[in-house]
Amino acid sequence: MAASVERLQLRVQELEVELAQERSRRAQGGGRARIEKMSPEVVDSNPYSRLMALKRMGIVNDYEKIRTFAVAIVGVGGVGSVTAEMLARCGIGKLLLFDYDKVELANMNRLFFQPHQAGLSKVQAAEYTLRNINPDVLFEVHNYNITTVENFQHFMDRISNGGLEEGKPVDLVLSCVDNFEARMTINTACNELGQTWMESGVSENAVSGHIQLIIPGESACFACAPPLVVAANIDEKTLKREGVCAASLPTTMGVVAGILVQNVLKFLLNFGTVSFYLGYNAMQDFFPTMSMKPNPQCDDRNCRKQQGEYQKKVAALPKQEVVQEEEEIIHEDNEWGIELVSEVSEEELKNSSGPVPDLPEGITVAYTIPKKQEDSVPEVTVQDSGESLEDLMTKMKNM
Amino acid sequence: MAASVERLQLRVQELEVELAQERSRRAQGGGRARIEKMSPEVVDSNPYSRLMALKRMGIVNDYEKIRTFAVAIVGVGGVGSVTAEMLARCGIGKLLLFDYDKVELANMNRLFFQPHQAGLSKVQAAEYTLRNINPDVLFEVHNYNITTVENFQHFMDRISNGGLEEGKPVDLVLSCVDNFEARMTINTACNELGQTWMESGVSENAVSGHIQLIIPGESACFACAPPLVVAANIDEKTLKREGVCAASLPTTMGVVAGILVQNVLKFLLNFGTVSFYLGYNAMQDFFPTMSMKPNPQCDDRNCRKQQGEYQKKVAALPKQEVVQEEEEIIHEDNEWGIELVSEVSEEELKNSSGPVPDLPEGITVAYTIPKKQEDSVPEVTVQDSGESLEDLMTKMKNM
Repeated sequence: MAASVERLQLRVQELEVELAQERSRRAQGGGRARIEKMSPEVVDSNPYSRLMALKRMGIVNDYEKIRTFAVAIVGVGGVGSVTAEMLARCGIGKLLLFDYDKVELANMNRLFFQPHQAGLSKVQAAEYTLRNINPDVLFEVHNYNITTVENFQHFMDRISNGGLEEGKPVDLVLSCVDNFEARMTINTACNELGQTWMESGVSENAVSGHIQLIIPGESACFACAPPLVVAANIDEKTLKREGVCAASLPTTMGVVAGILVQNVLKFLLNFGTVSFYLGYNAMQDFFPTMSMKPNPQCDDRNCRKQQGEYQKKVAALPKQEVVQEEEEIIHEDNEWGIELVSEVSEEELKNSSGPVPDLPEGITVAYTIPKKQEDSVPEVTVQDSGESLEDLMTKMKNM
Repeated sequence: MAASVERLQLRVQELEVELAQERSRRAQGGGRARIEKMSPEVVDSNPYSRLMALKRMGIVNDYEKIRTFAVAIVGVGGVGSVTAEMLARCGIGKLLLFDYDKVELANMNRLFFQPHQAGLSKVQAAEYTLRNINPDVLFEVHNYNITTVENFQHFMDRISNGGLEEGKPVDLVLSCVDNFEARMTINTACNELGQTWMESGVSENAVSGHIQLIIPGESACFACAPPLVVAANIDEKTLKREGVCAASLPTTMGVVAGILVQNVLKFLLNFGTVSFYLGYNAMQDFFPTMSMKPNPQCDDRNCRKQQGEYQKKVAALPKQEVVQEEEEIIHEDNEWGIELVSEVSEEELKNSSGPVPDLPEGITVAYTIPKKQEDSVPEVTVQDSGESLEDLMTKMKNM
């Protein structure tokens, strides 16, 4: 009898250990150990060997530098989640993720999230998966909407201080949001902070997209000339309320995330040519490129301020360097004999319902600012009032 | 004492149940239930709502048809795994996966596989993840190398009979392999079977790639003019043996998988224009397109046979239709005013060590066939002998 008790007690102990191990396996997903220093060693167990090989191939001079960068991603949906995964797998130093949405089964037609994550917040689910894929990356996630007054202040603070070293700004902000308001909010923040950022977008019919590099004062900001307004003329909330939704494809979103992160790598690690604007037309496999100068009449006063500062900086440079800088920005032709053409057709421009702004030479719009919906709930929007977001926020605070 | 034994026995039972549940939770990963019929209903729980919206947007006439197609993917690495994931999320009817490699931590710089899968076969790990993402897709996986004599016969049989309905051929074969030999093997099989397939590839320096549509007899096959030979001039096994490896990036591979599957969708669901050749130069964000007619002097006798059959078919068509068909194949210009240029520069051609084949008008090579390595282990390769793969296989069988 005593032997039996002892045997059972041992069995209970055994099972308890097994259960704990099993639970921890499921919780961890069985990731890998952290790696202190990136190694070029070619062994099956080295997750960085194929990236460090970029040095040997003569593409990147100093791949290890990737660990020194912090990138903020706003919007962790079809484009943002894949963007975050690519950067995590490339070994980026730190990722800051901003989203306020939850994972739904309706998101399963895009890469990254899986059915068992339905119901979790997108930032939480993404952090969990990405930590597991690469535990060397630092994560900071914020489960909130950046367009509210309070969150906007916090967002500005994290862009300014959330770099790899706390107190330093992030190196790049990536906009992977799906609506006009959030894009304008990021634009406002980046113009005020002089923060370089990249815009991305996918059309509501799922078969075109674009990326855009915005260096405040140097290239057109989102308010100078919005290049592609997703779901133009249609209020996003109205769509959802009426049981209608935009189409999306994992292909288009994967391509947009791919060209976005490729340009992030080229920008941070200093190789190849960074595109100021790259479009993707999936129906024709057409990829237009262009560059846009900032609009001196831009509605955003911080954009105009940054333009002044940039011009002063350029004027102060020796003549030789100015020429080089100009060439880099404009790159109107390339060695491939390809013509730079705008994605927009005359008909598209005519059919677009918003007014075409009066723009200086060198700027064209692909899409105009959405016309206000007459039957929608009136909302205070930046483009209607002509006021800056900060002004509006101050007003709202004083209400 | 008896009570104690009973209590312990109960505890053992409890723990055993808990452990079994925990194990099954980890194994299942908590997927979703199967869905009998695709619905356009816009609810958060519908994984197909954003795809069915392509009909409402006027892009695809009959999206549900996706469920009637079977696609074979050869190579489940950096491009193939993402290709499989995109097709699974799009709701493809059946996927046939072929690979003989194991997941390694060294693969973690690309999308899809995760560290806890290290050591598993790629096809097994992929099937597990993809079933979990979309249980509506049928899977057939083969953990073998298609280039061996025995496996080649089995591969041919599955291409011919592994369609959605057993006994019918698959609808499309996708080549996502990383070496010349496997590409030639797929080419041989598809030429013999008259099977339409798409080729894909990424360069060893990780910053360029391509996709190509091959309709036997109608467009150039891989033996007519290889468009991009990955790791040209370097034997893959030699590379691994000497501790050197090719570079790769999740960005380039994601873009190539994205443009590949986008063209698969356009081909299967009949929308947009399917590209015969689309290149991706990541350094310049340049995407050349071209089309290549088959080579009447092609080494592959089945390619020449298919050319003859295609010409007979075209000759039998009413004149009007012939003209349309020709336009569709050639499309030498497009509405975007973009020039069609080859990805290859004069210098690249000069530097390539293989001989430039004597090609008829309309065919150019991007890369030549790799020159035989003098110091490598002698191997029977198709390009050296000038014999077809079947002839070689018959010889080997008789050895």
